[in-house]
Amino acid sequence: MLKIAVAGVGRIGKMHAEIIARQTANAQLVAVADINEDAAKSIAGQLQVEHATVDQLFSASNIDAIAICTSTDTHVELIEKAAKAGKAIFCEKPLSLDVEKVDQSLRAVDAANVPFMVGFNRRFDPGHKSVRDAVQSKAIGEVHLARITSRDPAPPPIEYIKVSGGIFMDMTIHDFDMARYVVGSPVVEVFAMGAVLVDPRIGEAGDIDTAVVTLKHLNGAMTVIDNSRQAVYGYDQRVEVFGSAGMAISDNPRSHNGSVFSETKVQDQNLPYFFLERYTASYINEWAAFVEYVLNGGPSPVSGLDGKAPVILGLAAKESVRTGNPVKVDGV
Amino acid sequence: MLKIAVAGVGRIGKMHAEIIARQTANAQLVAVADINEDAAKSIAGQLQVEHATVDQLFSASNIDAIAICTSTDTHVELIEKAAKAGKAIFCEKPLSLDVEKVDQSLRAVDAANVPFMVGFNRRFDPGHKSVRDAVQSKAIGEVHLARITSRDPAPPPIEYIKVSGGIFMDMTIHDFDMARYVVGSPVVEVFAMGAVLVDPRIGEAGDIDTAVVTLKHLNGAMTVIDNSRQAVYGYDQRVEVFGSAGMAISDNPRSHNGSVFSETKVQDQNLPYFFLERYTASYINEWAAFVEYVLNGGPSPVSGLDGKAPVILGLAAKESVRTGNPVKVDGV
Amino acid sequence: MLKIAVAGVGRIGKMHAEIIARQTANAQLVAVADINEDAAKSIAGQLQVEHATVDQLFSASNIDAIAICTSTDTHVELIEKAAKAGKAIFCEKPLSLDVEKVDQSLRAVDAANVPFMVGFNRRFDPGHKSVRDAVQSKAIGEVHLARITSRDPAPPPIEYIKVSGGIFMDMTIHDFDMARYVVGSPVVEVFAMGAVLVDPRIGEAGDIDTAVVTLKHLNGAMTVIDNSRQAVYGYDQRVEVFGSAGMAISDNPRSHNGSVFSETKVQDQNLPYFFLERYTASYINEWAAFVEYVLNGGPSPVSGLDGKAPVILGLAAKESVRTGNPVKVDGV
Amino acid sequence: MLKIAVAGVGRIGKMHAEIIARQTANAQLVAVADINEDAAKSIAGQLQVEHATVDQLFSASNIDAIAICTSTDTHVELIEKAAKAGKAIFCEKPLSLDVEKVDQSLRAVDAANVPFMVGFNRRFDPGHKSVRDAVQSKAIGEVHLARITSRDPAPPPIEYIKVSGGIFMDMTIHDFDMARYVVGSPVVEVFAMGAVLVDPRIGEAGDIDTAVVTLKHLNGAMTVIDNSRQAVYGYDQRVEVFGSAGMAISDNPRSHNGSVFSETKVQDQNLPYFFLERYTASYINEWAAFVEYVLNGGPSPVSGLDGKAPVILGLAAKESVRTGNPVKVDGV
Repeated sequence: MLKIAVAGVGRIGKMHAEIIARQTANAQLVAVADINEDAAKSIAGQLQVEHATVDQLFSASNIDAIAICTSTDTHVELIEKAAKAGKAIFCEKPLSLDVEKVDQSLRAVDAANVPFMVGFNRRFDPGHKSVRDAVQSKAIGEVHLARITSRDPAPPPIEYIKVSGGIFMDMTIHDFDMARYVVGSPVVEVFAMGAVLVDPRIGEAGDIDTAVVTLKHLNGAMTVIDNSRQAVYGYDQRVEVFGSAGMAISDNPRSHNGSVFSETKVQDQNLPYFFLERYTASYINEWAAFVEYVLNGGPSPVSGLDGKAPVILGLAAKESVRTGNPVKVDGV
Repeated sequence: MLKIAVAGVGRIGKMHAEIIARQTANAQLVAVADINEDAAKSIAGQLQVEHATVDQLFSASNIDAIAICTSTDTHVELIEKAAKAGKAIFCEKPLSLDVEKVDQSLRAVDAANVPFMVGFNRRFDPGHKSVRDAVQSKAIGEVHLARITSRDPAPPPIEYIKVSGGIFMDMTIHDFDMARYVVGSPVVEVFAMGAVLVDPRIGEAGDIDTAVVTLKHLNGAMTVIDNSRQAVYGYDQRVEVFGSAGMAISDNPRSHNGSVFSETKVQDQNLPYFFLERYTASYINEWAAFVEYVLNGGPSPVSGLDGKAPVILGLAAKESVRTGNPVKVDGV
Repeated sequence: MLKIAVAGVGRIGKMHAEIIARQTANAQLVAVADINEDAAKSIAGQLQVEHATVDQLFSASNIDAIAICTSTDTHVELIEKAAKAGKAIFCEKPLSLDVEKVDQSLRAVDAANVPFMVGFNRRFDPGHKSVRDAVQSKAIGEVHLARITSRDPAPPPIEYIKVSGGIFMDMTIHDFDMARYVVGSPVVEVFAMGAVLVDPRIGEAGDIDTAVVTLKHLNGAMTVIDNSRQAVYGYDQRVEVFGSAGMAISDNPRSHNGSVFSETKVQDQNLPYFFLERYTASYINEWAAFVEYVLNGGPSPVSGLDGKAPVILGLAAKESVRTGNPVKVDGV
Repeated sequence: MLKIAVAGVGRIGKMHAEIIARQTANAQLVAVADINEDAAKSIAGQLQVEHATVDQLFSASNIDAIAICTSTDTHVELIEKAAKAGKAIFCEKPLSLDVEKVDQSLRAVDAANVPFMVGFNRRFDPGHKSVRDAVQSKAIGEVHLARITSRDPAPPPIEYIKVSGGIFMDMTIHDFDMARYVVGSPVVEVFAMGAVLVDPRIGEAGDIDTAVVTLKHLNGAMTVIDNSRQAVYGYDQRVEVFGSAGMAISDNPRSHNGSVFSETKVQDQNLPYFFLERYTASYINEWAAFVEYVLNGGPSPVSGLDGKAPVILGLAAKESVRTGNPVKVDGV
């Protein structure tokens, strides 16, 4: 039984805490912590566990693993502290907006030799995973092309956008990880085009809201990613890999499977609204994978390198938009 | 090269003539005939073949096969004449509304030993045929249940309904054939419920416009057929067989594969409007099968018995609605 | 905040207890009871509520409502006790295998004037409900036909079948309710055909495993239900209503939306395996509806009559199979 | 009645001739011509029209319009001759591999003031057209992103590739046109990545077989095109436009709608094999549009500029692959 504490119980941390407490075999939620003590108290009450300060988690002897779900700018420091304390570490994405700092935290993890996994939950979505499985089993042969669509239902508040690191660090980071995961070959070149088409205030905040990113992989395969901050029809999440022997697609689920046929049209259901609804299964599977990994060993399901590579790609995409030209990267 | 003449070039006969002339390998349309001489002339002109009276077809030495597409009440007589003339025979469904007469015509065919095929085109629809193939290959194991939906987009004129033999002889006759074709076991019992829900004038004409028919097969399997004279969303044609090892479905095609996703819904395309659009491939395949059968021999793709059984089932269904009870039939 | 106790925490009762405890707003699970005290203790421990004997629930003053999830033969007695104790009542289906006893229990409910709801969860499935909504809003006009497919992935143990009341009481009972729910008109006639095609031991136990039931409704509409105890491809649950202005369908969800296209085929995902996976949303919505109904009043979402009618239809179907003829019922 | 002659009756010209002869209202095929006289004779015989040399077509007084379906390198000369002869002109894509020559031919068309239409048939595909309609009606708001997938089932012979002008001129040219058609805003920048992944002999012939092209439009929208010379699962043709108010998709049709559900999977049908099967409707609609345009006037459905712009984009894509950088174009 793995004893886990959650540091940071905002929207995503709270969800992780609930899944650990209720839907994860061989795991026990023992404490939650948050800079906002009331939030920690309230969630601890609901889940009937203890609440603490973040620092108290590191010294608690009944805690085996810590889920770091605080704001991005605190990740590196907390990873280092947790590593030093000998705890197994789960950290939300992105590890940092700064590659140097990512390296610094990964060195701490290596030094402490503790289990470490990054929270790229989409790898654990059954549909997306089936695409990866089709690649790995060679069911679709050698990979030639990948297409990833990732569009949020609505933009976050402008204040969030200002501290988010920009669309490539906040949204596309998942897609960079997905490209590496499903194609299975390092990325060597990034070309990104961006535009402000959803809301001019996003442009005023120094970001873009619509993007197309093309990746070249070491094996010659190419990935295309498209992003938008606002898909009015719901949370649009599709992954497709095309290869020499076929194609694997992970298409959007619908809210339900009811349809109405009438004289002029057939009306189907829309997409689920956002990630808590869309990716429920992925979060549950992610925790199962983490617990299995910590208890039984083996390679990390989402390693430190898997956490670092998308940060490098995000910075390269940013650079590509700035210069208008493709940017080479060092095979990540 | 099989030389074929078409007798009766109303809507369906004209279509057959065009397919024979333009889309059937190893076949040549040589003549068309119709009680309406102008119609025959006009179509003969378009297809650049000769026109004739129906009787002239039987004596023409350059005609190998005759497609009988005249009104139902003339089928038996024309089959007999064609058989006597030694022509290969294709006859539209139903052979007759009268089982005695069907027998009489089949005796003539047997006596003349000429090739004979009934025009149950839906057997040649690629989707429906894939259901039958899944049954025959045992891909879905032993058959337990079949479901057939067959709904026309709009009712025919009341005048047509009066001479049609009723919904079971005119519409369901195709579904009786489909049930025999996909289940592959004779029918031993028929229970039919009917109602007048589409148009009261259909009831005044002595017919029903909505029906549910349940068949029991000799092997214990059961088939459910549902019919309506009016599906406002288009021509609804579905076949499903459920068995011990799986299920095979032939679902409706859509007019095209365009969809529009908006904030409140997803809008897809409707079904094709009617049989000329929906079943084009089946008619082309039907003629290929006829030509192959006549030129190369083998069992008839749709034999005389296949033509007779649905007439028996149609009469049984009529009787079932009249009495309100199931009707046993003699394994057809 | 509605305080609810669950009586009977077998597979279905345990699931209800968890949903009440964790996923139902304005509700609190306060106790669980079971004839198997260990089971009650264990689940009480997991959910951190009290455990009790069933009888203790009736006298507990901190319990507002009781969910009766015990075996069918105890339902009537527990309904009566709960009614006498003034508790709001949720009772699993079927109320009883005996119409007299159903009446007896409903009289007790009426006398006590307590809220009462039957657990026909499928009414609360978003897809099936969308079919009902399309009927009620007249989006598909007047109802002409309904088709309900309900096939379990695998048969229950023979021992269960012997006490289940037979397929019509155990499986089809849900479909009888669905027919009444989506068509919205009482049933006046039942015709059922059955067969033993899945497992001969089911026949030896006096039951059938494959059935087709046709219902005639008071408004002339017809419903066809088909059932099998074993669909190897998963839990097949479909509802379709066809009307004068269109059609509404609730189709099967898939396990996920991954597909693999290869040279010879496209391979999609199967159906979810069974009701706990397939109908999760329906159970959550069912409890929301119960709590809303008890707290705010209004008509029962699934009334006593809604609980009784399917029992009458189940008995009529049994009689129809026995006699081979349709059975008239008194507009239920 | 528009009298049309077809110059060049290879695979595509033969198909056009048949459609004009048999499936185009208000049109009459009067002659076919080909450099291969036997081919012309044979097709003329089948369609019962005259055969001629190409040059004879220009002087024939009974010919109103000429369909130029000869090899690409002859297009410009034939356009000029046809224009001088006062014939209405339909010309297959691409107009030329050389922009100067395209201009030269368009000047001749302008000088003669004859109707002129380029054969970008995919604009007339009902699914793709529904995407364009959704854009034009503002059903999906302002366009932000477009995705076009265009993959052939198998590469052409290496000999053909050598004279094809390369993948961008031969395959992507259709997608450049589609991007302009569905997005409705000129292209200002082109970035292309290419690779030889299908067959090394294609690389030896100086071409690529796999490509990703990103376009920036004047209105800020971005289009992504992906191409492959070999999709083993069939002819993959998809168009998607995403906008501020929704998304429109034109998905692949399947060969038919049969599916088989078994214990481990659901198996669906593959895509149609190639363009003659996939785009039949588009060709028929294309000829209807041409005839309507010539007989009734109005703007060309696919104008000279529509023929020239994709050539410019193809050259820019080639240049982008050569330099590794994006290429600006002058708003085409």
